[in-house]
Amino acid sequence: MAYKIGKRTIQFEKKPHIISYASAVGKKEHEGPLSQEFDFYTSDSFFGEKTFEKAESKFQKTAVNIALDKAGLKPEDIDHIFAGDLLNQCIGSSFGIRDFGIPFIGLYGACSTMALSTALASIFVETGISQRALAVTSSHFCSAERQYRFPLNYGAQRTPTAQWTVTGSGAVILEQKNDGPFVNAVTFGEIEDLGITDANNMGAAMAPAAASTIVHYFEDTGTCPEDYDIIFTGDLGYIGTQALYELCAGMGVNIRCRHTDCGTLIFDRKKQDVHAGGSGCGCSASVLCSYIMHRMEKGELKNILFMSTGALMSPTSSFQGESVPGIAHLVNIKSV
Amino acid sequence: MAYKIGKRTIQFEKKPHIISYASAVGKKEHEGPLSQEFDFYTSDSFFGEKTFEKAESKFQKTAVNIALDKAGLKPEDIDHIFAGDLLNQCIGSSFGIRDFGIPFIGLYGACSTMALSTALASIFVETGISQRALAVTSSHFCSAERQYRFPLNYGAQRTPTAQWTVTGSGAVILEQKNDGPFVNAVTFGEIEDLGITDANNMGAAMAPAAASTIVHYFEDTGTCPEDYDIIFTGDLGYIGTQALYELCAGMGVNIRCRHTDCGTLIFDRKKQDVHAGGSGCGCSASVLCSYIMHRMEKGELKNILFMSTGALMSPTSSFQGESVPGIAHLVNIKSV
Repeated sequence: MAYKIGKRTIQFEKKPHIISYASAVGKKEHEGPLSQEFDFYTSDSFFGEKTFEKAESKFQKTAVNIALDKAGLKPEDIDHIFAGDLLNQCIGSSFGIRDFGIPFIGLYGACSTMALSTALASIFVETGISQRALAVTSSHFCSAERQYRFPLNYGAQRTPTAQWTVTGSGAVILEQKNDGPFVNAVTFGEIEDLGITDANNMGAAMAPAAASTIVHYFEDTGTCPEDYDIIFTGDLGYIGTQALYELCAGMGVNIRCRHTDCGTLIFDRKKQDVHAGGSGCGCSASVLCSYIMHRMEKGELKNILFMSTGALMSPTSSFQGESVPGIAHLVNIKSV
Repeated sequence: MAYKIGKRTIQFEKKPHIISYASAVGKKEHEGPLSQEFDFYTSDSFFGEKTFEKAESKFQKTAVNIALDKAGLKPEDIDHIFAGDLLNQCIGSSFGIRDFGIPFIGLYGACSTMALSTALASIFVETGISQRALAVTSSHFCSAERQYRFPLNYGAQRTPTAQWTVTGSGAVILEQKNDGPFVNAVTFGEIEDLGITDANNMGAAMAPAAASTIVHYFEDTGTCPEDYDIIFTGDLGYIGTQALYELCAGMGVNIRCRHTDCGTLIFDRKKQDVHAGGSGCGCSASVLCSYIMHRMEKGELKNILFMSTGALMSPTSSFQGESVPGIAHLVNIKSV
């Protein structure tokens, strides 16, 4: 049974296993370094739909369907689905999964949602509340740009600190089992806000939350960065990553030796014009459900930390002069 | 420990108790029939802030602070906070609770969020993952009108089926204890969408989800409406309530004999011009954390169902011609 260790970390005994996972991405993601890792891609930004929002829902639906198919499961085999996205009122999720008929727990954690949903799904499986639970998130470059910044047609120029929202979705299915990679522990983060007001520099706004969560996790577990094969952050990008290193170093923790960021893995910085790196709910989700899980299954990675970070502002809060609160949730995935 | 009964319902053994609760509302709510039930009200729609959104965050912060004070607790005594609201990117919650330093699980379930957050907080306490967990939601008439419909200054006319978003917030604190009202069981609902496209008739759009969840609950538990003192829905209003009665009757369940709706309790239909009744995340939250909990504590109510309903659309999805998916989550609260 799950129990608390230290101040914030929840340790699992029954080990909720990741029995299936899938990723579905867009054209730019398919052209990037992880091209061959994804289960599905389409070069059509509309994914055959009339709007980018409907396309995003279809990415989420596609990822769920592939994850189910890979495990030979049907929607009715899943007890609870945990989902979220970046769109207002999370319509990427509600329209993406409404046809599955699975009890639905809607989440909003901005780009931290893949770690949040996986952590909650793990708890439901660990405690026997779900026999099987599914976690899924998505984002779409075009729907995010329109909602958070400018419609693409305006041709607005991006700042050097801006990140590129990943078009894609990732889904994991968890079950109590005895083989394959499993979720060993999770840590939910608190909101951290150091007063960054530049909504085009979200990496910097999220770094304090990432530092807080990971340092809490190390304290709770009595471990250090060297105990893990890789520490994956979600989408801090190049600038947020540097801020994270400095903040951690200030607390006596050097994570540089083990750290990488999904937002810097998914695009080629030199060939693809993404400025500070990839971002979005779909960024850490699609990298977890491809590159990371493939290496966990092959045994190349045996013990990792997966920490998605989110910026909890909205265009409205930014227009009203508010700073950008950050959050980070952490999932420790192991394979035996 | 929690265990599943039937298909969807989670039954608790350790009985997470509601050790504290608080409500904070606006002027119109204070002028309504529940006037004397609320812990706090302000007649200032801005609550001393510069914007309605900041005011909404302050309502949420106020409800949390009063709930903590009533229990003699400090923020650090709470292990996890579950929160959500109706604003884009849930800024009512993230800005409302960022200063508490409590690990934060952000939710989006539209107006179903109070049942969703209470259900999740109960699970965390039941399973020992949290020693104490807090659930809180909010809504604000003025921020909701601007975001979902028209800025108030436009003076737009409301349809007869429209509901009035409650300005207010409610918060509950749960802990494993042995006295007072406790959460006995919870049922998470699935998304139901019968194709209603009128975003001004959300009661009708949410009724199918309410019917689905409650009929599942009765099947799972082998109980019937007469086994409960009152069945409270969140904010179906007058029109949604009639739809719920008909849908339940079609499945052989008559809930009319025991049912009432928080959206019809909070305002006086004759004296206050609210058309189809109150609505919003803050509606079921503020009624639960005042009227309902007061009667549970006094022993006037001993066994109730609290089922908040949500409409999972956004203005964008409505503009794109989409229907309004509904969801309903249910919490069974008992007192011994």
